[in-house]
Amino acid sequence: MKTPPDISVSTRGSRRQPEVSRSTILKAALAEFAQQGLAGARMDAIAAAAGVNKALLYYYFRSKDELYSAVLEEFFVRLQARIGRALDSGTSASERILLYARAHFASVSESPYYARLFQGEMMNAGRQGSTRLSQIVDRYIRPIALRVIGVLQEGIAAGEFRAVDPAQFAPTMAATIVWYFVASPVLRKVRTGDPYSPQAIRERRAAVLDFIAAALFVDRKAGIKLAAQVAARPADAGNFSDSATARGSNAPRRLK
Amino acid sequence: MKTPPDISVSTRGSRRQPEVSRSTILKAALAEFAQQGLAGARMDAIAAAAGVNKALLYYYFRSKDELYSAVLEEFFVRLQARIGRALDSGTSASERILLYARAHFASVSESPYYARLFQGEMMNAGRQGSTRLSQIVDRYIRPIALRVIGVLQEGIAAGEFRAVDPAQFAPTMAATIVWYFVASPVLRKVRTGDPYSPQAIRERRAAVLDFIAAALFVDRKAGIKLAAQVAARPADAGNFSDSATARGSNAPRRLK
Repeated sequence: MKTPPDISVSTRGSRRQPEVSRSTILKAALAEFAQQGLAGARMDAIAAAAGVNKALLYYYFRSKDELYSAVLEEFFVRLQARIGRALDSGTSASERILLYARAHFASVSESPYYARLFQGEMMNAGRQGSTRLSQIVDRYIRPIALRVIGVLQEGIAAGEFRAVDPAQFAPTMAATIVWYFVASPVLRKVRTGDPYSPQAIRERRAAVLDFIAAALFVDRKAGIKLAAQVAARPADAGNFSDSATARGSNAPRRLK
Repeated sequence: MKTPPDISVSTRGSRRQPEVSRSTILKAALAEFAQQGLAGARMDAIAAAAGVNKALLYYYFRSKDELYSAVLEEFFVRLQARIGRALDSGTSASERILLYARAHFASVSESPYYARLFQGEMMNAGRQGSTRLSQIVDRYIRPIALRVIGVLQEGIAAGEFRAVDPAQFAPTMAATIVWYFVASPVLRKVRTGDPYSPQAIRERRAAVLDFIAAALFVDRKAGIKLAAQVAARPADAGNFSDSATARGSNAPRRLK
């Protein structure tokens, strides 16, 4: 058992901060990793931004790699929970698939840093194979995908959805949801206005749900109307914002 | 005026290779940049892979940055030409928008390296702002986007398309086309089979065109049928393959 380091010896010369939490460090680490990448991120900078000394940082997270994994994992734990709630709450396959899209969209739109981080992870994985990405897929992405595919199959069986191939339609929905944020550096240059402004987010959300409904529902007119209703509902309290990552004690498992 | 370096002095000790061309270097550079990233790529490795000495490399491309820009630009010159042909060749807005989607899909599916390279460029741009990305957007992406938006407006005016917002629908189409390839490291782990196999590509192409037609066309049934026909046509000779990048003398402008 390691004992906690003496956090009164701060690199910033600050006073004792016993309330400094794991989530404060994760928040500072997210910003640093998203801006500098895994290779470029500095533990010194994360410690300074979190207002803790490096010893405490290494006490919570044994290495930069482990801290990076914890940051990624934190996002997917919350994503899975939020999408799970959405998939559980609809009264029909039609409503559930729209609520899924809304929840996925909300999670990504509220966390611009995570879109960058995950994109970087995919690039690293393509270059050298990534155990971390495999674990995220096994623990979060595949279970989410299987649930979404299940709702698609259910809606097809019930005659609500066209007979699409769910294994194609599920990633297509993810594409329309995520791409806007992944491509935001390009969108900023193609057109005027901030793609993350509240109005831009509202318009994009409505367009995504309209697109899914128009492509998927057998009764297209009714589906488009339902999509507009779902898009206009008040936001689920997902607490996903990059600036509000405090999560209490429900810590995610660590990726090895 | 610089004079050509003595290419008989090869780092690989090879014989004179007067036929060594710019395109051979670009092909080797593409593979190196896609695998190692701009920062990690080595000019030595590119020279060795192309079978030329470093002096020749620097004769053609003054710096690693310039070589990287040339590699990116080569893709977009061909993408723009191919999409331009597609948009010029249809007999109706409906056929043109499907031919656009088919051409865009073909370009990306034939060049896995470019999907990675462009993704890396977007990440760099998000981190530090990128003049290179701005130039690619100005010269290629915005002109293509404006043409696609024009066809959407035309189809809406003609009563062929639903009254979607073209500025939303154009990036949504791009998302369904590109995301499959960008996310291929994840798709490889979520399901079995190579996402780049000829059968997987055929199935994905059909699904993308079906999705666009089902979401966009006023007469959905006729649109879906047309999409299936367009998806099944023999490929446009786009010559986009990463393993066949020889282009003759039609060199792209250089990005500054």
